[in-house]
Amino acid sequence: MSAYDRIGQQLSGQALDYVRAISPYVIGKPVDEVAREFGLTDIIKLASNENPLGASPRARAAMQSLDDLHIYPDGSGYALKTAIAKKFDVAPSAITLGNGSNDLLELVARAYLSPGRNAVFSAHAFAVYALVTQATGAQAKIVPALPPDHPTMPYGADLPAMAAAIDADTRVVFLANPNNPTGTWVSEPELRAFLEAVPDSVVVVLDEAYSEYVDRAFYADGRFPDGLLLAREFPNVLVMRTFSKIYGLAALRVGFAVGHPQVIAILDRVRQPFNVNSLALKAAEAALADEEFILHSRAVNATGLDFMAKALASRGLSVIPSLANFVTVNTGLPAGLVFDALLREGVIVRPLGGKSDTGGLSCHIRITIGTQAQNERALAAMDLVLTTLRATAG
Amino acid sequence: MSAYDRIGQQLSGQALDYVRAISPYVIGKPVDEVAREFGLTDIIKLASNENPLGASPRARAAMQSLDDLHIYPDGSGYALKTAIAKKFDVAPSAITLGNGSNDLLELVARAYLSPGRNAVFSAHAFAVYALVTQATGAQAKIVPALPPDHPTMPYGADLPAMAAAIDADTRVVFLANPNNPTGTWVSEPELRAFLEAVPDSVVVVLDEAYSEYVDRAFYADGRFPDGLLLAREFPNVLVMRTFSKIYGLAALRVGFAVGHPQVIAILDRVRQPFNVNSLALKAAEAALADEEFILHSRAVNATGLDFMAKALASRGLSVIPSLANFVTVNTGLPAGLVFDALLREGVIVRPLGGKSDTGGLSCHIRITIGTQAQNERALAAMDLVLTTLRATAG
Repeated sequence: MSAYDRIGQQLSGQALDYVRAISPYVIGKPVDEVAREFGLTDIIKLASNENPLGASPRARAAMQSLDDLHIYPDGSGYALKTAIAKKFDVAPSAITLGNGSNDLLELVARAYLSPGRNAVFSAHAFAVYALVTQATGAQAKIVPALPPDHPTMPYGADLPAMAAAIDADTRVVFLANPNNPTGTWVSEPELRAFLEAVPDSVVVVLDEAYSEYVDRAFYADGRFPDGLLLAREFPNVLVMRTFSKIYGLAALRVGFAVGHPQVIAILDRVRQPFNVNSLALKAAEAALADEEFILHSRAVNATGLDFMAKALASRGLSVIPSLANFVTVNTGLPAGLVFDALLREGVIVRPLGGKSDTGGLSCHIRITIGTQAQNERALAAMDLVLTTLRATAG
Repeated sequence: MSAYDRIGQQLSGQALDYVRAISPYVIGKPVDEVAREFGLTDIIKLASNENPLGASPRARAAMQSLDDLHIYPDGSGYALKTAIAKKFDVAPSAITLGNGSNDLLELVARAYLSPGRNAVFSAHAFAVYALVTQATGAQAKIVPALPPDHPTMPYGADLPAMAAAIDADTRVVFLANPNNPTGTWVSEPELRAFLEAVPDSVVVVLDEAYSEYVDRAFYADGRFPDGLLLAREFPNVLVMRTFSKIYGLAALRVGFAVGHPQVIAILDRVRQPFNVNSLALKAAEAALADEEFILHSRAVNATGLDFMAKALASRGLSVIPSLANFVTVNTGLPAGLVFDALLREGVIVRPLGGKSDTGGLSCHIRITIGTQAQNERALAAMDLVLTTLRATAG
């Protein structure tokens, strides 16, 4: 080894131990990478829970003028925060913006977590909770999920067990509703009981990245809670939303958090001054107002989710209940094998059971709900691949 | 106080002490805010060192297609890293991308700093060095700059003193070249001697945000160092560049770091998987290839810098030597007063001597070099404002 590389290696060793121990997040395979690798041209990506209808047309229109690319973004996000405040009836001081909700999750971790403190979250939770926790040197207390044979919510978050796991060193709870990568959810009464059990000194991050996909009837009768209403009642609730899902703006990176202004002020202390780019600010503001696109996206997803869940179940496969824009299914075969075989058919899905998973989902794949044509193609590819793999396995 | 607000306040108190102590970065006043506040319509902003020529036309052209807004960015930044690698003759594995170079500075702090460790930087350095250091709980060792009456580089970084300030707990040195907000710089022999004195175990961040503005003749004879060449020799050098300055893409947030692949791999562990948005990736790749725009921007700036420095000096004002796209001048009056008076004339500049300054620049303002018309208008406003303020003061 050269002296240059020896010193480089030593410098790697000078990084904080808990940073060195991080396994980076595994991103969904980009389409052009698959195209290069397998020489394919007709590929569908159902791996990253993106909106198959594209972006809100209003958002695209709002971005046509590219005049001020040389000017820094408005670091206060004045216009977008005003629009969010109006739409959701919250104060602008109760809002902060993030470079996607990943950024917001990181702000919470950096403000509230350090060695000696801990964060509580469920098994099978969004992989980023573990990453942002570990990057601060805090402990991740991962609570076992409901069992696979649970009558209504297999693999769901076990809220009473999560409440019981909170100790004097807990500063943050992460809870996604609906959850990614399972699609499971908690009801209003369940969440309310949990919030009543959580000490006031613990920030409860309620990650609602997928909540806009939930049927409004579920909100009406309490089958699904409105986090923004709960945040008015519980000052320790911090709701996170993203423009990457139903609004169709994943490319631009923008999300927002709503909570008590004093908690928001803390997050703003660790926020990069220009964390959200100008085009994202403009596009998000326009997308927020595009009710037609939101309703259409929700309706297309509801139809597709129902279709896919039933189609997979009719094939004898066990499907986890989902209110999100994806369905997670037990393939009965190692998820990596199924993923690889589907790739060769030009269908990119997400295999679970990776390093960030705590076990129990090693045969599950997560399939984003696409357009009807994409859904049908995914099913046909599944049929082909599972038949072939079963024959080989048998 | 309501129970809701009392709990909110308590939650603020649960944040890490060193986070609570942060004074957030003060951003340059946005044009529309000034317009609202003073009822002005014709405003020039020379406050944030933006490129007065706008963005590279190639970058704008590359962004015309807004087709994949709903798709996550390529988290590996494959195409942009390949282009950077080619242009600067470095390995792709020696590069990581940031959401502006602010993001990169934060990655270094989060990977290498924590309570008990420290970072060394000069007085009058970029305010973000102090912010990212404090957000980790590490100590900031701020080294006094060269004195105001230094014969060649008043307010410049005192490299021997910085080397002497490094102790066993130092993990990072931040050095901007040219420096912001002063414009001062260090030469190749000075920097080389410094790097030879710094222990191998300390990462030296060489922030070259403004280096593209430096006359190529300065590189040729060693009056200004090429950080990328030094990084090949010194594995602990981490060079940072931004697309926010000469490339004119501040709105989009993209920067890059070049260093030893093992150090880069550490930064990638704390990097958000999709930290750079898709349009920024596309625009930066195109801007990188737009040599004509870079040359033109450099030439316009050189002319403007020379004009402004001479014009201000001819008015008896003391100007700090600058190789960047701004000039920092002692107004002889409190900077805040001058800033306010210039605002009323529709000219936004940056007053120094704020909280993040360690003293000595309380009468200085930083003026971005604009177009010739903007420079002349700034000078006329200065003449008016200084005459009025002096009369009032006298």
